[in-house]
Amino acid sequence: MLKHYYATGTCALASHITLEEVGAAYTTERLDFKNNQQNSADYLAVNPKGRVPALVTDRGVLTETPAMLAFIAQSFPQAKLAPFDDAFAFAQAQAFNSYLCSTVHVAHAHKMRGARWATDDASFADMKRMIPKTVGASFALIERDMLRGPWVMGDTYTICDPYLFTLAQWLEGDSVDLAILPKVIDHRNRMSERPAVKKVLAEERS
Amino acid sequence: MLKHYYATGTCALASHITLEEVGAAYTTERLDFKNNQQNSADYLAVNPKGRVPALVTDRGVLTETPAMLAFIAQSFPQAKLAPFDDAFAFAQAQAFNSYLCSTVHVAHAHKMRGARWATDDASFADMKRMIPKTVGASFALIERDMLRGPWVMGDTYTICDPYLFTLAQWLEGDSVDLAILPKVIDHRNRMSERPAVKKVLAEERS
Repeated sequence: MLKHYYATGTCALASHITLEEVGAAYTTERLDFKNNQQNSADYLAVNPKGRVPALVTDRGVLTETPAMLAFIAQSFPQAKLAPFDDAFAFAQAQAFNSYLCSTVHVAHAHKMRGARWATDDASFADMKRMIPKTVGASFALIERDMLRGPWVMGDTYTICDPYLFTLAQWLEGDSVDLAILPKVIDHRNRMSERPAVKKVLAEERS
Repeated sequence: MLKHYYATGTCALASHITLEEVGAAYTTERLDFKNNQQNSADYLAVNPKGRVPALVTDRGVLTETPAMLAFIAQSFPQAKLAPFDDAFAFAQAQAFNSYLCSTVHVAHAHKMRGARWATDDASFADMKRMIPKTVGASFALIERDMLRGPWVMGDTYTICDPYLFTLAQWLEGDSVDLAILPKVIDHRNRMSERPAVKKVLAEERS
């Protein structure tokens, strides 16, 4: 049985939705970030990085959202969530998810997690002022060049979709101008209607 | 014919080495970052992100190192650079490469690329002071928990190895204490002896 560690409002929503989409048998454990539970000894024994998500499998623990999403897709091939038999198409999906983790999520993280990269309050304030611009610019690139519609990769729903949906949850909080992102918002609305998404959001918000 | 865009001293070294390792037929084009060639109109038509690496294939352009490395491995299966037939093992390799792109490379980028996330000179100086600590901490985690030896994934050379080698090029410049990283340095030395690595470094430094 798979076990998925998550915290509310984090990127772990992407793997959580994907587990639900494929019909996996899994349990969840919610960490309380307000009490720094991600850095408890118990959790660091699961994931030494002190981050979510983490997925406990019968062969060991997996971390890092792009890797976990591809793992879930490959483990449940009947769901057809990634084109493993087409190296180029699979690489395009992976490139999209890699951009989300290394550029979009990183831009967002400078709002609340500046202490990862700096020490001074003035630096944190400087970083926070940039958030609408930096997060907005990365979503503008997605809007213009990456999101094909109706799903990220075109007609087929893939592991890119729950991940984009997850990061798009943060747009209002990051004060990004939604008017420049009609395709992203349309995608977010379409995702919100999926039964797996509704179920997972209900659990995470309960 | 594949065409690989790179710049000297960047993470594009990883995909360059991997193309060489698999025996791909490819050409290269070097961008001059000092003259901001990555933001020229010609290059933005190839990669709108204005970054390297980029790989032009007969089906389109690929970006993002983790995706490109897996693409090269999958396109040249005889080189056996990734365990595509084992979802868990493949996910472990992908998780390693995802950590390099989203945490290790990002930590390093705060030395010279602070303008991605802030605007004030004081913030840039603050970020630079953190570099030995932040880059050092991420490599310490690799040393302790991830690098199995002799190669990243153990006995088999994979797409994780050229990527780790690439980021380990920056350790001295980032003033990281090498004494705490004996396995990483041993790996870097072992990589340096590979013919593909020697050939690529000679080209990039010519």
